[in-house]
Amino acid sequence: MINIIILGAGNVATHLYLAIQNASGVNVLQWYNRNLKSLEAHKNETDITDDISSLKIADVYIIAISDDAISELSEKLPFKDRLIVHTSGSTSLHNLNSKNNRGVFYPLQTFSKDAQINFKEIPICIEIEHKSDLKVLRNLANAIESKHYRVNSDQRAALHLAAIFVNNFVNQLYRIGHEITESKSVEFNILKPLIKETALKLQTLSPYLAQTGPAKRNDKKTIKKHLRALEKNKTHKAIYELMTKSIIETHGKKL
Amino acid sequence: MINIIILGAGNVATHLYLAIQNASGVNVLQWYNRNLKSLEAHKNETDITDDISSLKIADVYIIAISDDAISELSEKLPFKDRLIVHTSGSTSLHNLNSKNNRGVFYPLQTFSKDAQINFKEIPICIEIEHKSDLKVLRNLANAIESKHYRVNSDQRAALHLAAIFVNNFVNQLYRIGHEITESKSVEFNILKPLIKETALKLQTLSPYLAQTGPAKRNDKKTIKKHLRALEKNKTHKAIYELMTKSIIETHGKKL
Repeated sequence: MINIIILGAGNVATHLYLAIQNASGVNVLQWYNRNLKSLEAHKNETDITDDISSLKIADVYIIAISDDAISELSEKLPFKDRLIVHTSGSTSLHNLNSKNNRGVFYPLQTFSKDAQINFKEIPICIEIEHKSDLKVLRNLANAIESKHYRVNSDQRAALHLAAIFVNNFVNQLYRIGHEITESKSVEFNILKPLIKETALKLQTLSPYLAQTGPAKRNDKKTIKKHLRALEKNKTHKAIYELMTKSIIETHGKKL
Repeated sequence: MINIIILGAGNVATHLYLAIQNASGVNVLQWYNRNLKSLEAHKNETDITDDISSLKIADVYIIAISDDAISELSEKLPFKDRLIVHTSGSTSLHNLNSKNNRGVFYPLQTFSKDAQINFKEIPICIEIEHKSDLKVLRNLANAIESKHYRVNSDQRAALHLAAIFVNNFVNQLYRIGHEITESKSVEFNILKPLIKETALKLQTLSPYLAQTGPAKRNDKKTIKKHLRALEKNKTHKAIYELMTKSIIETHGKKL
């Protein structure tokens, strides 16, 4: 049995808690949060605490709190030489205090509080300071049925940066689609099947091969017409121009 | 029975042909293409022709060819007062010659030759010159089990423009994600569950509510770190800056 202590009560912490409690071979021995209220719904299932000095001995301590607070909390831990991991994509392993063995257990997914999360679908990026700590983290990932990948700091940073493009920026393009359709009183719903298909296509086709449209064809007439239609919104127009330029760069045609 | 004649042999034409032939109440009476070879695989299923003067009498003629060729082909049609539609998102109804009754039957989806297309998932945007032509196009959409929406020219143009953002530009962001991960020898596959979830989230949540990440939080430290990491690729950096600006504009925080 792998005993885990979770520190934090946000989205990632809560989803990890649920996944671990539903898995076999792993157990949440204790759940810490500085504010006990957020944990009270679970007090009959596990030991909850807001007292850092009362933390038990566990195999892995998972710090799943906001990036800025990781360093401070790891410093406060009243023990040493145990395995501490954080779950952040963009925080260095070295932000964890060096009195303990350090690692990262980064689930690369978008977490909403309400949405049900299936860890089978979530890749976990594992980074460790000491090779001997790899096994327990792998076993933890296996127990919650996540695919796991061992990465180094540079690779994790690249994944986090790429995730900004394919998640936050993609979502903002959806938002712009929403604004454009709303401005002409058309239902945004009409675009949803296209949004879905564009993402699903990627599961089997590279984005290079999946590309279509006026920019790839270098169809200047259509591009010009679109830029005219975007005249009223400078940011939308700038995005259209820049993304078109990027597609043309990728597909090797000059404007 | 609604009799259809399809003109053209590209992706849209072929997918429409298959959908109509598999539906009941509709029938492809004839399939025209200037190059007969592309149609020969279907010569035992329908009447194929490359001779525009031999076109039969049908209820609807669907011109599914490249945008630039629509006008010329519609001019060459050797009859008048019949219902002619094109399938283009960005071409005016008025590009069809006025000797016939004009309409648009625009399936808003991304078509690849090989991918199987389920028309149940494809919204059809219908535009017509004469109200009396609506019924037959609605019946055609119903027969192939597509959801259909009546739109005007402005609305269709807005949908087509929005589709560029949520399809072509989104796909280019996937491509950039691919380039960033490849540059550090990480598998792009790790990002695929996130790509899928980002799109599926949208089916029930508005893009405004679905947004997360450093730009929305206005997390300057992370943004700065990312811009530094993108130093080597000017276009990627410019896209990061512009999309971040756009998110901040939407979510009402100042840089």
